[in-house]
Amino acid sequence: MRSSLPGRDHPAQARPASPESLLPPQVRESFPALAEAREVYLDSAATTQKPHAVIETVRKYHASATANAARGTYPWATALTQRIAAIRAHTARFVGAAHPDEIVFTGGATAALNAVALSWGLTALRDGDEILYSPRDHAANIHPWYLLRDTLARFGRRIELVPYRVTATGAADLADIAAKAGPRTRLLTVTHLHHVFGSTTVLDGIRALLPERVLLCYDCSQSGGHLPVDVTALAADFAVFAAHKMFAAPGTGILYCHRRVHPELRPFLPGGTTDVRLTATGFESGRMPGLLEGGTPNIPGILALGTALEVLESYGMAAIAAHNTALTHRLLTGLRTVRGLDFLPGPAYGGHDTGHGIVSFTLDGISAADLGFVLAEYGFLVRTGAQCVPGGAAGDAVRVSTQIYTGPDHIDRFTDRVRALAEEIS
Amino acid sequence: MRSSLPGRDHPAQARPASPESLLPPQVRESFPALAEAREVYLDSAATTQKPHAVIETVRKYHASATANAARGTYPWATALTQRIAAIRAHTARFVGAAHPDEIVFTGGATAALNAVALSWGLTALRDGDEILYSPRDHAANIHPWYLLRDTLARFGRRIELVPYRVTATGAADLADIAAKAGPRTRLLTVTHLHHVFGSTTVLDGIRALLPERVLLCYDCSQSGGHLPVDVTALAADFAVFAAHKMFAAPGTGILYCHRRVHPELRPFLPGGTTDVRLTATGFESGRMPGLLEGGTPNIPGILALGTALEVLESYGMAAIAAHNTALTHRLLTGLRTVRGLDFLPGPAYGGHDTGHGIVSFTLDGISAADLGFVLAEYGFLVRTGAQCVPGGAAGDAVRVSTQIYTGPDHIDRFTDRVRALAEEIS
Repeated sequence: MRSSLPGRDHPAQARPASPESLLPPQVRESFPALAEAREVYLDSAATTQKPHAVIETVRKYHASATANAARGTYPWATALTQRIAAIRAHTARFVGAAHPDEIVFTGGATAALNAVALSWGLTALRDGDEILYSPRDHAANIHPWYLLRDTLARFGRRIELVPYRVTATGAADLADIAAKAGPRTRLLTVTHLHHVFGSTTVLDGIRALLPERVLLCYDCSQSGGHLPVDVTALAADFAVFAAHKMFAAPGTGILYCHRRVHPELRPFLPGGTTDVRLTATGFESGRMPGLLEGGTPNIPGILALGTALEVLESYGMAAIAAHNTALTHRLLTGLRTVRGLDFLPGPAYGGHDTGHGIVSFTLDGISAADLGFVLAEYGFLVRTGAQCVPGGAAGDAVRVSTQIYTGPDHIDRFTDRVRALAEEIS
Repeated sequence: MRSSLPGRDHPAQARPASPESLLPPQVRESFPALAEAREVYLDSAATTQKPHAVIETVRKYHASATANAARGTYPWATALTQRIAAIRAHTARFVGAAHPDEIVFTGGATAALNAVALSWGLTALRDGDEILYSPRDHAANIHPWYLLRDTLARFGRRIELVPYRVTATGAADLADIAAKAGPRTRLLTVTHLHHVFGSTTVLDGIRALLPERVLLCYDCSQSGGHLPVDVTALAADFAVFAAHKMFAAPGTGILYCHRRVHPELRPFLPGGTTDVRLTATGFESGRMPGLLEGGTPNIPGILALGTALEVLESYGMAAIAAHNTALTHRLLTGLRTVRGLDFLPGPAYGGHDTGHGIVSFTLDGISAADLGFVLAEYGFLVRTGAQCVPGGAAGDAVRVSTQIYTGPDHIDRFTDRVRALAEEIS
């Protein structure tokens, strides 16, 4: 190992000054877990750290006037019902939805994608219909469609899952999609910001090329809270978000459903407060979003989301995105000269401004898992392995991911450590 | 209104001493929302208040070493994975399950009942099969079966939902169930402790009368954390629990699936970490409980459940049940002499030891909704209305529900207030 390597406590001060697009390091002070930690958290794509304000919102809910929502008629309960309605409206504005009734709260982004499969696909799809998907996406955007195909097959209804390719930069291959879309295509599902490749895909440019009946579904689990996302600009019919990757808590997801698809939806996990009316022979579906919600919601999770949106807006989504792009550029620049390091598809193969805080790579002579363990020993917390992509189709790599509490010092220490390890190995 | 009525700040001290089965009032000090509140919380069947220890568990998760679980290989992540495994084993012991792999964490009890419908019913049921259910149960134990019937009908598969009656005490009518169970009955679903009537139903006594292939499903949303529950003693195939009614947080449910049903289960809301393997033509189901879980779990909710179980065990479930039974008896005794007050089916019509902290009633001359508003004005927080029973089939009533932080003083002040209102009205 090179003896002159800067140690963990000596960030390389001779580096170029941070670009102006970086947020100041004081940002970290809002995230108590980082203030306490010696580790460098580089796994924000798995879950983001939680700011003080979010933690305090959850604590206050549990510690004062705890009640259920949308049920009781006393002030503790009605105040919660109103807060949740306000957060729904805020969420709609935040993601660019035209109407609050297009926003459904689910147990997570995975549940939200399954809601599309169950509340729309299960009864909307006909024999021979097709879904266009990427086999290199997150399992949450693959498993629901496989399960749906299997379920329908058991009832004698055959649908096709048509895979499309990914480009060298890790984005969905729009030409391949356009070539494969046909008269039986009903759904095209993509990842807005890929969780391993770190590349963005937008489909509004090819919306006009696709038949009218093709619905567009975006997995925004990684882009939400990292980039400005506007579901209307994306021409999305469905879009899902993971609150815990937006500074809020696990257990809450956002499902956006454009009003034009509302007539095709059936209830999702119905229970108390679901907007349905039982009849002698069945039931009548009610209005959105109550049609797709039921049971006691994750109240602290939704309140946490409300506060998280305020925190995100206090920085500004453009500023957050610029920060992560600047860090990505710095990370790529630093890693690019490491011997034996290969990047997975992603911003390494794109322009300077294409990165959004996610970079994945491999290193010759050491498995990603082993590299991850060694990095953890040095206090760098990264993700390794198949990364929830079925069959490891996205490759076995180390993934680095950033957020506003990640600084250029973290990136420099990390790249120095990887370089040192690479030299040790070779 | 009677002028000599004891005021809110003067609990009736001339009442008989509390039975020895009551827990001491110091219990309340563990619940910070109650320490701050002037109100008397009598809506524990909607959600329980949260003890300090649970609140602190959630805060600590968010404020230190926040990570995802079952994904990363660094200590922050692996420690969480291990804690969740330990809580699963603890939950199994707590509900009397023989094996931890019989415990699935869901987004709530409603999601858990829907999991039974989707992961078992959707493909296990054949044309002509029957589900026995109560139309006077909570919507969470009705809507999933209605939706399932509707879904199957769209594929040309007809199942029957066969309603059974409720007795005068509010329990499921076992004679009616036995009479209606037949060779096509596949599922019998009941509520262990009814959320409006406050009556318990157990089926193990008629298990031998039912055909082997009838699966038993218990909604333990109200009994969990209130009574000792042993799913093995209940002869349950499925059982569901709501963590937020067990001193833990909204957004987490428990689904118990006896091992004998595992071979019939298909994935529920699959995503990352779901135990399935994709094949060229479909997928192979893996093992429980991973088969029915997917995506980032509600980590703080599961950690909260772990602490809540410790809190429940520190009091002892028998002591908790005895406390609520004693309060129910006191409440019934107090309300029984109020003019114009009628009890819904429930412990008012049973023996002294049949109450478990839930009593519902109506008062002549005032709607339940209006009575609830008036009571809230006086600081008594109760539930009113249809109470999530479809079509209001359980009646329009005021429901009072208790937990260990409810004291005899609260009950006495409440009954005094109801008596005063009744006299004012008449």
